[in-house]
Amino acid sequence: MINVAVFGAGRIGKIHAANLVLQPGVKLKYISDVNVQAARELAGKNGAQVVDIDIALADPAVGAVLIASSTDTHADLILRAVAAGKAIFCEKPVDLALARAKECALAVGAANVTCMMGFQRRFDPTFEALKMRLVAGEIGEPEMLIVTSRDPGAPPVSYLKSSGGIFKDMLIHDFDIFRWILDDEAVSISATGSCLSDPAIAESGDIDSAVVTIRTRRGRLCQINTSRRAAYGYDQRFEVLGSKGMLQAGNHKPTEVVASTAQNVSQDKPEHFFLERYRAAYAREIAHFFDVLVNGGAVRTTIDDGVAALALAEAATLSWRENRTIELSQ
Amino acid sequence: MINVAVFGAGRIGKIHAANLVLQPGVKLKYISDVNVQAARELAGKNGAQVVDIDIALADPAVGAVLIASSTDTHADLILRAVAAGKAIFCEKPVDLALARAKECALAVGAANVTCMMGFQRRFDPTFEALKMRLVAGEIGEPEMLIVTSRDPGAPPVSYLKSSGGIFKDMLIHDFDIFRWILDDEAVSISATGSCLSDPAIAESGDIDSAVVTIRTRRGRLCQINTSRRAAYGYDQRFEVLGSKGMLQAGNHKPTEVVASTAQNVSQDKPEHFFLERYRAAYAREIAHFFDVLVNGGAVRTTIDDGVAALALAEAATLSWRENRTIELSQ
Amino acid sequence: MINVAVFGAGRIGKIHAANLVLQPGVKLKYISDVNVQAARELAGKNGAQVVDIDIALADPAVGAVLIASSTDTHADLILRAVAAGKAIFCEKPVDLALARAKECALAVGAANVTCMMGFQRRFDPTFEALKMRLVAGEIGEPEMLIVTSRDPGAPPVSYLKSSGGIFKDMLIHDFDIFRWILDDEAVSISATGSCLSDPAIAESGDIDSAVVTIRTRRGRLCQINTSRRAAYGYDQRFEVLGSKGMLQAGNHKPTEVVASTAQNVSQDKPEHFFLERYRAAYAREIAHFFDVLVNGGAVRTTIDDGVAALALAEAATLSWRENRTIELSQ
Amino acid sequence: MINVAVFGAGRIGKIHAANLVLQPGVKLKYISDVNVQAARELAGKNGAQVVDIDIALADPAVGAVLIASSTDTHADLILRAVAAGKAIFCEKPVDLALARAKECALAVGAANVTCMMGFQRRFDPTFEALKMRLVAGEIGEPEMLIVTSRDPGAPPVSYLKSSGGIFKDMLIHDFDIFRWILDDEAVSISATGSCLSDPAIAESGDIDSAVVTIRTRRGRLCQINTSRRAAYGYDQRFEVLGSKGMLQAGNHKPTEVVASTAQNVSQDKPEHFFLERYRAAYAREIAHFFDVLVNGGAVRTTIDDGVAALALAEAATLSWRENRTIELSQ
Repeated sequence: MINVAVFGAGRIGKIHAANLVLQPGVKLKYISDVNVQAARELAGKNGAQVVDIDIALADPAVGAVLIASSTDTHADLILRAVAAGKAIFCEKPVDLALARAKECALAVGAANVTCMMGFQRRFDPTFEALKMRLVAGEIGEPEMLIVTSRDPGAPPVSYLKSSGGIFKDMLIHDFDIFRWILDDEAVSISATGSCLSDPAIAESGDIDSAVVTIRTRRGRLCQINTSRRAAYGYDQRFEVLGSKGMLQAGNHKPTEVVASTAQNVSQDKPEHFFLERYRAAYAREIAHFFDVLVNGGAVRTTIDDGVAALALAEAATLSWRENRTIELSQ
Repeated sequence: MINVAVFGAGRIGKIHAANLVLQPGVKLKYISDVNVQAARELAGKNGAQVVDIDIALADPAVGAVLIASSTDTHADLILRAVAAGKAIFCEKPVDLALARAKECALAVGAANVTCMMGFQRRFDPTFEALKMRLVAGEIGEPEMLIVTSRDPGAPPVSYLKSSGGIFKDMLIHDFDIFRWILDDEAVSISATGSCLSDPAIAESGDIDSAVVTIRTRRGRLCQINTSRRAAYGYDQRFEVLGSKGMLQAGNHKPTEVVASTAQNVSQDKPEHFFLERYRAAYAREIAHFFDVLVNGGAVRTTIDDGVAALALAEAATLSWRENRTIELSQ
Repeated sequence: MINVAVFGAGRIGKIHAANLVLQPGVKLKYISDVNVQAARELAGKNGAQVVDIDIALADPAVGAVLIASSTDTHADLILRAVAAGKAIFCEKPVDLALARAKECALAVGAANVTCMMGFQRRFDPTFEALKMRLVAGEIGEPEMLIVTSRDPGAPPVSYLKSSGGIFKDMLIHDFDIFRWILDDEAVSISATGSCLSDPAIAESGDIDSAVVTIRTRRGRLCQINTSRRAAYGYDQRFEVLGSKGMLQAGNHKPTEVVASTAQNVSQDKPEHFFLERYRAAYAREIAHFFDVLVNGGAVRTTIDDGVAALALAEAATLSWRENRTIELSQ
Repeated sequence: MINVAVFGAGRIGKIHAANLVLQPGVKLKYISDVNVQAARELAGKNGAQVVDIDIALADPAVGAVLIASSTDTHADLILRAVAAGKAIFCEKPVDLALARAKECALAVGAANVTCMMGFQRRFDPTFEALKMRLVAGEIGEPEMLIVTSRDPGAPPVSYLKSSGGIFKDMLIHDFDIFRWILDDEAVSISATGSCLSDPAIAESGDIDSAVVTIRTRRGRLCQINTSRRAAYGYDQRFEVLGSKGMLQAGNHKPTEVVASTAQNVSQDKPEHFFLERYRAAYAREIAHFFDVLVNGGAVRTTIDDGVAALALAEAATLSWRENRTIELSQ
């Protein structure tokens, strides 16, 4: 039996909690959150106790912690969990500062504890099937990757102000997709963007529309396009052009109803947002984490992946700000 | 050079005329129509002369006639063209009366003239590709055929009154599709229907919605569903289930635009009606007719096919009227 | 807390058990099965006890029974559960004999116990969304329903022999779909079929391919086509033509990967079979059953629906055997 | 009657000749080509004469010339046709050198002759329908444009050497699409690329894979991705994200056959290459040109459009070579 402490009882914490109680041999023991009311509700629902983080980390019966608290707490909690010898599942990003993230990665490596980052997209059934078919050689050697990643609407400007900017907050997932799908590293990155939906976003120093171009060591090309606001919902597509063909990952729809009327022939919009679209992915990443803890093996999304995605986000931010291509020394 | 006389300068006559003047080695010499004005317009556009049918048939320079006049004239014109030794292209149906149609087929056979029926659907690129893939064995042995055949709207009741009823007027094409796709013959047919869109159709003794079931000699099954009124346009689909898979023929769209909005994700409705949908098929059937005349070979849609489709339409009408399955002795 | 006894620990019993333990306020107390080993495994997994059916029915703490045993036991168990005053969830069919099914329905009605039939398709997200949009008037008045219902492969002939035949075993779901979607009743039914995949099925007195035509009280038309063997998997589609358009329910795919190669552009086959395709539907029907028990209201799939679907299956069987249209007096 | 001289009897010259003889009131009078045999064949087919360009330009009966000869002759022929006062239809590009192209544009402007560039994609039914719906406001203000433009295979390296490079030879169409769809001008452009399919292309100083990012005056963003080699055929898609939704232009398929087998569910690959895909567009651009000549109005693809697209191609080439973003002063 693995006892788990969940840090953070917000939206994503609840999802992880609901998934982890379904894992055989896993018990949700503690919930911690600065919002005590939220912690109590989540604990009550799952037969867990609300405790301070210190107590959870001090309990030798706790084998793993799940960090789903606000971004500015991630690095500190990772370091404390490492010190306490706990296995760690941590939401992205490791930290908004690359140096701090690298410090965490070093600590994790030195302590040799299991630490998995919540890049849930790698566990999406469509994305994972595409990756497996790519690896199996179905379209030969990959040459080009086009990623479309658009949110249905922007979060409040108050959130954006502490988000680290669109590249660290939103595209970090796409940078991870890039590294995972192409199994390659960037040698240069170029980003530009605009604020087109809401002037308040520009006033906060951020943008809502961004495009990125990446060249890889092997000369492959990647384009990413992003917007905070797609009127038709959450748009999560990518396509890989290979020497023998193309693999595309399309959006998921709530139903397969097709309506033909005097106007047109229509289908459902994509699943509304990440909670709907990545429901299966969230369940599968948690299952993977505990499967590794129980049966051994390596986690598929390491803290090094977290650092690498953050490094790309930082370089993209610099490229956008200074309007130049950033060469990445690796 | 093959000189051609076109009988009928209406909608379908115009289409055939426009296609035949594009054939190399073919000249549109005469147009005949009881509507002299229509005949003159079509002749003027194509450098042809307006003459009486007698004159056209008597001209030894005329090698082929194209019959696109009203249904009640088809049989008479076929017999006269046979007597004059002309090659014949005739719009469906041969006649509304099966006995009369058989008489024509006998005359054509005895005189050994080329006579092609205008079952243009066999020349539709999608339908023909499906047929070729079926024959190539892509889905093994065919077992079941489902035909969906719906018009965007009913013609005037005045037309319906002399149309021979929905089975002879509309489903005759579907009966031909059935025979062609399955390469098999019916042993029993069962039809029923309703008048759901316009009571005036019922008052004229006809129906606007019909469903038909056919069993074949080899035990295969076919279902046809038809309506005079599909709000979304002309719906012309069919699917064949075989022992190793399924082949479906889908509708054609005017454009490949996809619109994603806050409401849904939509595409174009199907091509509006037969003139749009079967534009390529009309061109290709005329090309085929003249190719046979020039280069020899057999026409792909014979007068015997016309008789066979009419026999099914007559049996379906009887089945609907008497509410019983009709066994077909063959 | 509602304590539940599950009768039947086979494939479908396991699915229902897994779903019901997720319902808040519901406890799986007993499992009964003639296969004691299967019962023990399922009980062990869910912290339930293996007992005889008598004991389960005699326990006043048991509020509901879930009947997932073999078809020939359904009627007897329904009657015993009614006598014991338990709420009932029963897999289709009520019984293979219409008279016996009606007897059960009478008993349920007299005792006024909740009895829900397992027509899970009504709870499929795609089908339910289509129904709601139809009811909302999106395509006007429904006129025609086309149902395609094909299995990926036939069950063993030994199973088929006691299955009641294709109409009672397989099409009973489609007959329920027909009644539910059109909200109308049949006035006549006509069925025919063939054995095309395996002669052993014919030798057992059954067929593997069937087509059915139904006319309703309001003159609407329904066609159903079925096969025991579709090489591409489980094919579960239907479409409703209405006065203002068409609604279609398409198949569900495991992923949204599209592959473009030198051969073609391809997508996944449909979900393989009912366990995959109707996974969400099974979960949602169980949630509905317990929601009714806890919060009141009427179940959406009553034993009368079970009787009505069975009556259609019996009429279809007769139509097929006697090769004639059956008029239904109602 | 407008008499036309066609300069160039190659692949594209033949297509234009076949389309222009179908225009009412238009006569193909002369064909000129350095390949006299090709000129004779095309002339013979269309009842035209083979003459030297000088003779064609000197004939006052000639109202229009169609320039479909090799790229290095375009500018010279435009200037001579302008001097002769002929209306001009010219294949893209105006010239490989921007200065020379501007010189031609100045001459055209000064002489006030009609000069249309062969950007046929603007006449593609799908692209044009998308543009009209965008202008009609269906998705609000455009914010982002993603263009995918891939050929089925690279031309011979001998051709590539004199092609001006991938940006002038291939992407020039995409630069025109960008300007036309967004109705906006570039303020900066950034391009990079690789040679991934054939080292001989790299040796010739060119690349086969390229990605471009453009920022517009209004802050809109455009990404273009291109490859000389897509194993699945000619890939010509683009999508516009707007404030209220998205419009996508998809590929065209030869047929609408769908095959479901034990492997997958597949459809046709896209139309193989530009001759197939843009068949309708080629016909419609020629019809437009002569419609303007007969009925007046402005041509939709001017020589200024040709210059503007070339300017973008030149800037993209520079960006790729110098690995930096090019600011465009306008």
